[in-house]
Amino acid sequence: MTLTADAPQTNQAAPAASGRVTATGEALRRALDGPFHDVKQRWRTEVTAEDFVRDPEWDIPTARAWALEKLVDLAGREFAIAGFPEAQGGRGTQAQSVAHFEMLAMGDLSLTIKSGVQHGLWGGAITNLGTRWHHETWLPDTITGKATGCFAMTELGHGSDVQSIETTITWIAEDGEFEVHSPTPGATKAYIGNAAQHGKWAAVFGQLIVDGENQGVHVAVVRIRDEDLSPVSGVTCGDHGHKGGLLGVDNGTITFDHVRVPRTHLLDKFGGVGEDGVYHSAIESKNARFFTMLGTLVRGRICVGGGAASATRKALSIATRYALKRTQFRQPGLGEEILLLDYQTHQRKLLPNIAKAYAYGFAQNELALQLQRVTDAEGANPVAARELETRAAGMKSLLTRWANDTIQVAREACGGAGYLSENGLTMLRQDADVFATFEGDNTVLLQLVAKALLLDYKKTWGDMDMRGTAQATARMIGGTFLERTTARAVIDRILAGSKSKDVGSRAWHIEMFEDREKHTVEGLAKRMRAAAKASDSFAAVNACQQHMLAAARAHTDRVVLEAFIEGIHQCEDRYIASILGKVCDLYALATIEENRGWYMEHERFDGARSKAITEAVDALCVELRGKALELVEGLGVEEAWLNAAILR
Amino acid sequence: MTLTADAPQTNQAAPAASGRVTATGEALRRALDGPFHDVKQRWRTEVTAEDFVRDPEWDIPTARAWALEKLVDLAGREFAIAGFPEAQGGRGTQAQSVAHFEMLAMGDLSLTIKSGVQHGLWGGAITNLGTRWHHETWLPDTITGKATGCFAMTELGHGSDVQSIETTITWIAEDGEFEVHSPTPGATKAYIGNAAQHGKWAAVFGQLIVDGENQGVHVAVVRIRDEDLSPVSGVTCGDHGHKGGLLGVDNGTITFDHVRVPRTHLLDKFGGVGEDGVYHSAIESKNARFFTMLGTLVRGRICVGGGAASATRKALSIATRYALKRTQFRQPGLGEEILLLDYQTHQRKLLPNIAKAYAYGFAQNELALQLQRVTDAEGANPVAARELETRAAGMKSLLTRWANDTIQVAREACGGAGYLSENGLTMLRQDADVFATFEGDNTVLLQLVAKALLLDYKKTWGDMDMRGTAQATARMIGGTFLERTTARAVIDRILAGSKSKDVGSRAWHIEMFEDREKHTVEGLAKRMRAAAKASDSFAAVNACQQHMLAAARAHTDRVVLEAFIEGIHQCEDRYIASILGKVCDLYALATIEENRGWYMEHERFDGARSKAITEAVDALCVELRGKALELVEGLGVEEAWLNAAILR
Repeated sequence: MTLTADAPQTNQAAPAASGRVTATGEALRRALDGPFHDVKQRWRTEVTAEDFVRDPEWDIPTARAWALEKLVDLAGREFAIAGFPEAQGGRGTQAQSVAHFEMLAMGDLSLTIKSGVQHGLWGGAITNLGTRWHHETWLPDTITGKATGCFAMTELGHGSDVQSIETTITWIAEDGEFEVHSPTPGATKAYIGNAAQHGKWAAVFGQLIVDGENQGVHVAVVRIRDEDLSPVSGVTCGDHGHKGGLLGVDNGTITFDHVRVPRTHLLDKFGGVGEDGVYHSAIESKNARFFTMLGTLVRGRICVGGGAASATRKALSIATRYALKRTQFRQPGLGEEILLLDYQTHQRKLLPNIAKAYAYGFAQNELALQLQRVTDAEGANPVAARELETRAAGMKSLLTRWANDTIQVAREACGGAGYLSENGLTMLRQDADVFATFEGDNTVLLQLVAKALLLDYKKTWGDMDMRGTAQATARMIGGTFLERTTARAVIDRILAGSKSKDVGSRAWHIEMFEDREKHTVEGLAKRMRAAAKASDSFAAVNACQQHMLAAARAHTDRVVLEAFIEGIHQCEDRYIASILGKVCDLYALATIEENRGWYMEHERFDGARSKAITEAVDALCVELRGKALELVEGLGVEEAWLNAAILR
Repeated sequence: MTLTADAPQTNQAAPAASGRVTATGEALRRALDGPFHDVKQRWRTEVTAEDFVRDPEWDIPTARAWALEKLVDLAGREFAIAGFPEAQGGRGTQAQSVAHFEMLAMGDLSLTIKSGVQHGLWGGAITNLGTRWHHETWLPDTITGKATGCFAMTELGHGSDVQSIETTITWIAEDGEFEVHSPTPGATKAYIGNAAQHGKWAAVFGQLIVDGENQGVHVAVVRIRDEDLSPVSGVTCGDHGHKGGLLGVDNGTITFDHVRVPRTHLLDKFGGVGEDGVYHSAIESKNARFFTMLGTLVRGRICVGGGAASATRKALSIATRYALKRTQFRQPGLGEEILLLDYQTHQRKLLPNIAKAYAYGFAQNELALQLQRVTDAEGANPVAARELETRAAGMKSLLTRWANDTIQVAREACGGAGYLSENGLTMLRQDADVFATFEGDNTVLLQLVAKALLLDYKKTWGDMDMRGTAQATARMIGGTFLERTTARAVIDRILAGSKSKDVGSRAWHIEMFEDREKHTVEGLAKRMRAAAKASDSFAAVNACQQHMLAAARAHTDRVVLEAFIEGIHQCEDRYIASILGKVCDLYALATIEENRGWYMEHERFDGARSKAITEAVDALCVELRGKALELVEGLGVEEAWLNAAILR
C-alpha cells in the first residue's frame, strides 16, 4: 500500500488540536507501548508537566531541591516504585520498573537519574544483594524517599575496572564488626549520586578482607549523614559541583576513614560473615561471585538505555512538530514558503531516526520482558542471565550513542531556536551526554558483548581479560552461533516464505543483518585465535578491539530488527501494522545503508545495489513524511510534556 | 622513516614539565601556525588563563559582565582588533584578525563570540558596508568596546533566507530621514548578540524603500540604548535568557516601532540615498547588490570555522594528555595497568582527529590568506571573491560539524571526569554547539557550495533558487572543472612524480580525493540537468539535495588535503616535515576510509583494498601514538589555558 495517497507532500501540516492525539497516533502508541501500555497510559493521564518537567534555567540548589521533592511526590503517588517487594511497599514488576523509568525520562533526566540512584541503584543493591533483614530495615523508607542512599561503586582510580577498586571492608574479629576504609586517594568514591547533599546511607563496594584473605568485592551499608543531613564521623563527602548536565543530581565523592559498621550491614546474599566470624558463600569462585553480584544489577543498564531513548523521542517530537509548522525559502514560481519537513535534507535528518526510535522501542520492550524472565527464574538459568547481560550491554551502548547523536540532529534541525533553553533541546542533549559513560562506558560494554558472542555465553564475560578471551576462543570448537530472539517463529516463517532479493523484502533485510553479524563474529573469532598464539599477546589482542566493537554492533542491530518484526507481528490493527511495516523498512534499509561500506567490502552487494538502497531510503522518507505527525505522536510523549516555546 | 623506533608503545608517557613545550612540539606549532606564528606567539607569551579563560560555573550575569570586561581589556592591549583601518585604531590585517579570533577561541568561546559580535559583525558592517564618515563616527569607540553594537540581520521569521526579511527602512522624503520599522512579529530581530544587555547601537538589516520602490536589503545604524544603557523610544529589546551555551553572550531580540534615523546612518558603500533624496548604487541588479554586500561579511564565516577548530584543538589536548596519564585494566600476565592511549579503541578516537586538526589548521591558514588577497583586490576580482565565499562556506560547515563531533569524542574519552565542568570539556561542547547554525546553517551552506561548483563560480551563488540553479546547470557547456588551490605547483609535481597506488602514496591520495570530487559534482550536474526538465521541478530538484551535500563535502575535503600538502611543502625542518607527512597520511586515509562506501559503490577500489586502508589507519595510529604529546603540543594551545582539573 502507498501511505502517501491521501497525504499531500507540501504545506499540508495538519497537527491535531493541542493536546489531542490523532486516532492513528493513539494506535501507534498502543503498538509501541506493547505490554507496558497500561503503565505508560497512567503516566499520560495522571502526570502533568508541573509534576516532572524541569525549568532549564534553574541553578544547582534549585534543581537539586526540586528533584528530591518531585521524587518523593511521584513515589507517594505510586509512580516509579516498581520492582521492590510488595511487602516493603513496592508496586509492580521489574519489567514495569523499566517502563516507569522510561516515562520519567520523558519529563526530566535529572529527576530520572535521581530516582535511578535512589530506587534503582541504592534500592536495587539492597533488594538484590541484601537479604530479608536488609529489606525490612531499609526498603520501606527507601521507596518513599526518606532513606536517601548512594550506590558507592566507582572510585577515582577505577571506573570501568570495578574489580580493582581499593576501598576495603575489613572484618575486625575481636569486635565482631567491619571497618570500611579508603586507603589511597584513588580509593575515593567518585561521581556518586546523592553523595554531595541528600544521601544518608551508602551501599559501599569494597574488597572484603576476612582473616587476611581478600574475598573480592562486596557491599556494606554505611551511614554517611545523620537524619538531619549533618555529617557523621569518619565519612567525608565532597561535591562535584557543576557538571555538563543533570544539574538536579547531587553527584559527589565519599571517603572513609576507618569507619566501623555492624556485621549485619554487609549485603550478604552472595557471601558474608556469619555470627561465627567465618566467611561463607554459596559461590566458590571469587570471580563468579563478583560477576553474579554485578549481574543482579543489570536493570540499571537497561533503564539507562531506555531513558536515553525516551529523551530522544522527546527531541524528535519537538523537531518534527517544528518542521511541520516552520517554513523557510520559497517555492520556485509559486512563491509559497516551504515547510522544513518538505526538504529532502530535513526528511533525512528526522525520519530515519524516527524509524530507529520505533525499532529501539520494540527491542527495549523485549529486553524488559527478558529481565522479568531472568528475575523470575531466580538464578535457575545462568545462560539466560548472561544473554540478558550481553543484550543489556549492547542495547545500552547502541541507544545512548544514538541518543546523543540524534538529540543533536534535532537541535540543529530547529536552527537558532533549538539553541534557546526555552525550547528544551539543549538541556536534553546536556543531560543525556553522560549516559554514554555511566552504567558502563560504551566502548567497554561493546567489548563485553563481543566476548560473550565469541564464547557463546558459556562463560560470564567478565571472567577473563582480553588474552584470556583470545585463549578461550582458540579452544572453542566449530563456528560461531547465532541465537534467535523470541521472534524466532515469525523470523523463520518470513525466511521460509520469501526468497525475494528486492530491497523491500523483509527476508532480504533479515538475511543482510544476520549475515553481517555472523561474518563479523566469525572474523573476530579467527583473529582472536591467531592473537592467542602471538608473541606479544597484548598487542595482538589489542589490535582486535575495533573489530570487537563492529561485531557487537552487528549483533545488537540484528537483535533490534528481530524485535521490531515481532512487534509488528503482535500488532492486531492491520492498518497500523502496515505503517509499522514501512517504518521497519526504513529502519532496516537505513541501517544497511550506514553499513554499506562493510557489505561491499565483503561483496554482499555491489555498487548498483548500494545506490538502489539509498534511493529506497529517500523514497521511504518521502512516503512517511505524510505520516510524520502521527509517527511522533506514536512515540508516546504527551504534547504538554514537550515544554518547548517554539511549539506554543 | 619509522617514528616509533625510539618511542616505546606502552607505559612510556613522558609529558614535558608543566607549561614547557618539547622541542618537537614547538617546531610543530611553528609549522602549523605558518604565516601567523608571530601573532599567535604573542598570545602565548602575553595572555594568561586569567585574561580569557571562563569559569564554567558562572551564572549568566557574571559571565556576561566578565565577557565585556575582558573584551575591553584585550582590545586595550591590542589583541583582537586587527582588520580595522589603522586610522581608526586598528592593528593588523584581515588575515591576522582571523588568527586573533582563533587564539581567543583557545581561551573561551563566549568571549570569542562577544568579540566576534562587537569587532567582527558590528565593526565589520561599519567597516565593509559603510564609508569614511561611518568609519570616523563609530570605529574608534567600537574598537575599544565603548560603542557596543549589534549585527541585526536574522529575524524570527527568516534565518537562512535573509532576502525575505521583513524589517523596513523607509525613506521619508519630506523629513529627509529614514524610518526603521518591524511590521510583523516575524520581523523581530532574533538571536542578536549584544541586544539583550550591552548594545548601544545596531546595524539593522531591512528592505530599503525609496519612493515606494523596494531597493532590496540595506543596513541602517540605529541607536538602541543610551550611553547609560537606558532604553530609547521606539526600540524594544528582549532577552533570550538561558541558552545551550555561550552564557557570556547577551543574545536577544530587537523590534522597531517607526524609529527615525538620519539619512547619513544608512551604510551606503553599495547603495544609498543622496542629499537629493534619490537612491543611487553602482550595482544595478538588486540581487547582485545584495550578494555583494553579504560577500563583504565573509570574514565572520571564516572566523567561526577557525574558532570551532580551536575549541576542538583544546578538547583534543585535554583528552590526549589525560590518556597519557590515566590507566585502566591490567596487562595480562605482567599486571601493570594500561594507559588509555595504548588501547586501539582510544587511539582510534583521538589520533585521526588530531590529524584532522592539522589538516584543517593548514587549510584555515590558506583561507585567511585568501581573504586577505580578496580584500586587497578591492572588488577587482569577483571570481576570486566567489571562490572565497564558497570555500568559506564549505570550511565553516566541515569544521563546525567536526568540532561538535570531536569535542564529544574527547568528552567521552575522559569518562565520568569528562562530564565534570571543572575539566572544561562540556562547556566547550555546549559553547561550540551553535557554531553549526550561526553564520549560516551548515546544511544550507553546503548547498551553496554545491551551486557554486555546478556553475564554475560564474554566478554569485546566492543569485538563484534551486530550480534556477538546475536550469543554469542545464545551460552549462561541457563537464565540470576542478580548480586548484595555491598548492597547484606541488600537487602537479607529486602527481607527475609517482604512479604508485600504494596506500601510503600521496599521489594516490590526491587522485582519490580529486576523483571523488569530480565524479560527485559531475553526477550532481547530470541530475540537476534532468531535474530542470521535470514537470514537478521542486520535487525533482529537492531530490538532489543529499547529493549536493555530498558534492560540497568532497570538494572541501580535496581543498583541505591540498592545503595540508602545501603546508608540509612550506615546512623547512625536515624532521618536522616527516612527522607531518605521517599525520597527512593518517588524515588522507582516515578520510578515504570514512568514504569507502562511496569509493566501492563507484568501483574506485575493491573490498580487499578497503580492508588494507583500514589496516593502514590502524598502523598509523600505533605509529603516531608515540608522538601524541608532541602532536597535541603542536596544536598550539598553551597548557595553562587548558584549565582542566584532571591534568593538574
